[in-house]
Amino acid sequence: MLGHVSSPLADRSEAPRQGDEGGPEAVVRLDPDLAPALADVSVGDEVLLITWLDRGDRSVLRVHPRNDTSAPLTGVFSTRSPDRPNPLGLHQVRVLAIEGTELRVSDLEAVDGTPIVDIKSTLGPIGSRCHDRR
Amino acid sequence: MLGHVSSPLADRSEAPRQGDEGGPEAVVRLDPDLAPALADVSVGDEVLLITWLDRGDRSVLRVHPRNDTSAPLTGVFSTRSPDRPNPLGLHQVRVLAIEGTELRVSDLEAVDGTPIVDIKSTLGPIGSRCHDRR
Repeated sequence: MLGHVSSPLADRSEAPRQGDEGGPEAVVRLDPDLAPALADVSVGDEVLLITWLDRGDRSVLRVHPRNDTSAPLTGVFSTRSPDRPNPLGLHQVRVLAIEGTELRVSDLEAVDGTPIVDIKSTLGPIGSRCHDRR
Repeated sequence: MLGHVSSPLADRSEAPRQGDEGGPEAVVRLDPDLAPALADVSVGDEVLLITWLDRGDRSVLRVHPRNDTSAPLTGVFSTRSPDRPNPLGLHQVRVLAIEGTELRVSDLEAVDGTPIVDIKSTLGPIGSRCHDRR
């Protein structure tokens, strides 16, 4: 793990189910030894955080979308459920401030203490496939 | 691990450095026990594969973008280099065919044998944040 999330979200019942429902601002605290890897991330950048959703249930293969038990069970690989065999979370966030190896970010739907496993430049829009070419 | 990639790419020297440079078709072979998780993925879908780039160098914190040694060293968290502390690969691919728990997919820039760690519905375009809401 590279670090962890500090967030006002204390548990999953408070977390929005999708990023577009608006997560709160949160702080990503990384190991200070990782400073060189973070050196070219700037305030205003959009980045992808990959987290390990350690409160996910790894035995789950099908879920009711949006926790709506009237909706049909759906295979988890067609969803973004945190309950899945490898509970990786993928979060597109904007960097609001940087202090050492701590990043304040927008809209992070991950609960307090969630481990961070990677940070990447964003995928471009689907269709244009305009990946950041760095 | 959920399974692995079968690809004509035998090693990293053959792999394009970004997905938009066009990876080859490849087959994602998953553990048959995962069939229920895959049940709602259909031919034609765009999905995100997350791989573990097991040939990545986990000690690397800065890289020359595009392997161009005249380019300045850049912190890996601003890149998609496979050399990084946790070498996760993120691949947006289209499902071309499904047979049991094997998916034939387009444009996969991962070498033969690369482990698969997750499959997710795609992120929407940046800006609209139109996540798949399932």
